[in-house]
Amino acid sequence: MLSKSQISLLKSLQHKKERAEYGLFLVEGYKSVIEFINSSYHIEAIYYTASFDPKMLKLSRKINLCEISVTDIQKISSLKTPQDIIALVKIPAWPALTNTQLKQKFTLVLDGIQDPGNMGTIIRTADWFGINNIICSVDTVDVYNPKVVQASMGSLSRINVHYTNLTATLPQIGLPVFGAMLNGENIYTTNFGNEGLIVMGNEGNGLRPDVEQLINKAITIPRTGKAESLNVGIATALFCSEINRKSYK
Amino acid sequence: MLSKSQISLLKSLQHKKERAEYGLFLVEGYKSVIEFINSSYHIEAIYYTASFDPKMLKLSRKINLCEISVTDIQKISSLKTPQDIIALVKIPAWPALTNTQLKQKFTLVLDGIQDPGNMGTIIRTADWFGINNIICSVDTVDVYNPKVVQASMGSLSRINVHYTNLTATLPQIGLPVFGAMLNGENIYTTNFGNEGLIVMGNEGNGLRPDVEQLINKAITIPRTGKAESLNVGIATALFCSEINRKSYK
Repeated sequence: MLSKSQISLLKSLQHKKERAEYGLFLVEGYKSVIEFINSSYHIEAIYYTASFDPKMLKLSRKINLCEISVTDIQKISSLKTPQDIIALVKIPAWPALTNTQLKQKFTLVLDGIQDPGNMGTIIRTADWFGINNIICSVDTVDVYNPKVVQASMGSLSRINVHYTNLTATLPQIGLPVFGAMLNGENIYTTNFGNEGLIVMGNEGNGLRPDVEQLINKAITIPRTGKAESLNVGIATALFCSEINRKSYK
Repeated sequence: MLSKSQISLLKSLQHKKERAEYGLFLVEGYKSVIEFINSSYHIEAIYYTASFDPKMLKLSRKINLCEISVTDIQKISSLKTPQDIIALVKIPAWPALTNTQLKQKFTLVLDGIQDPGNMGTIIRTADWFGINNIICSVDTVDVYNPKVVQASMGSLSRINVHYTNLTATLPQIGLPVFGAMLNGENIYTTNFGNEGLIVMGNEGNGLRPDVEQLINKAITIPRTGKAESLNVGIATALFCSEINRKSYK
């Protein structure tokens, strides 16, 4: 049973302002909740309805479990068809990104990605290809947005996401900066080496000029058909895959 | 000015049943409308508000143009924030798919894709990579669904989409059938040859057993990270890209 003020707080977490204020966000659905339980995230509480058996969670540590009504879960859920379990999770204070953390690996950099579905898919794709860090411009969509959490399918629990001023941060990292651009080197013949930053631009506008100036190597995905552009989630995945494929030559 | 019954008809085209009944669908937004005008689709009418200048359409043939109020465009639009132009377009009667049409090229086959956003992105990606035909199981989401049309960003105007019984059709085509599956051959080292069908399964359930039986070559995208699966739009793009990249070796 949830009080009116609890429902009101949980519901308010659909908005970025309240997530920042309370330092909390919601994870919906059994599969995603399990992945957050098995991660370094701190779970404040788990809400479930009578149709869910909490034994399925196989908890090895104490977590505050709370059975609530279907009506209450509908009130706090961001989904049209709510699932029978929702976790209340603490937003971690990410330690500052260090350069050594990024050496000998590839990191995604997102310049103003707006669509939560794209963001969630990018996180899921990064997790598939073993990319652990994503650096975002401060105006990139919030990763704890319910639609991002949903689309990331639990992968958010394993990826470090850092928000920062890209023009200040990128030059300090000291790694090759690859950028998805028109008229760049062919992605299929590019030698990516063994470390670097892959910068992807906003859905409609691409890279901002001040970020574009920081690109060492412009890279293009060759087009054989007629579409004007590729979805940014798709383009990101093609970069991740090209980097991944060199291990299988 | 639209009559009440016209508004009611146009609005009803958000539903598959009414689209099939009237043989019509809507295309929203300037960029997409232009692509349909420049395609073989028949445009029944174009509705626009006072903020849009119809000269921008540079029409070389007669199309029924109709200025309507912002209130009316809001009524017929499927978007939260409607654009200032909507085209009413005739659903074409696709000629039967012939085997010669599919020879010496690659064709996508979709087994029960449900999410309109995924479907639209797949169409856009196919168009980028020069894939002209998509064959869908009859329960795949309708391509004239407003969210599919929106996500395809005009590419739908250039791609032939056929709905058919896959288990009856696929064996008759007589081309190699590649399927996205777990425990298949590594996509990075597969020789796709120069023609074939690429079969992608449903978001949650993958390929159906009777479709799986028709696969000649199971193909896997190697995972280096921990995500349980890839989004189907992403997986489809990785197949298209691997086929495309052989032209650049």
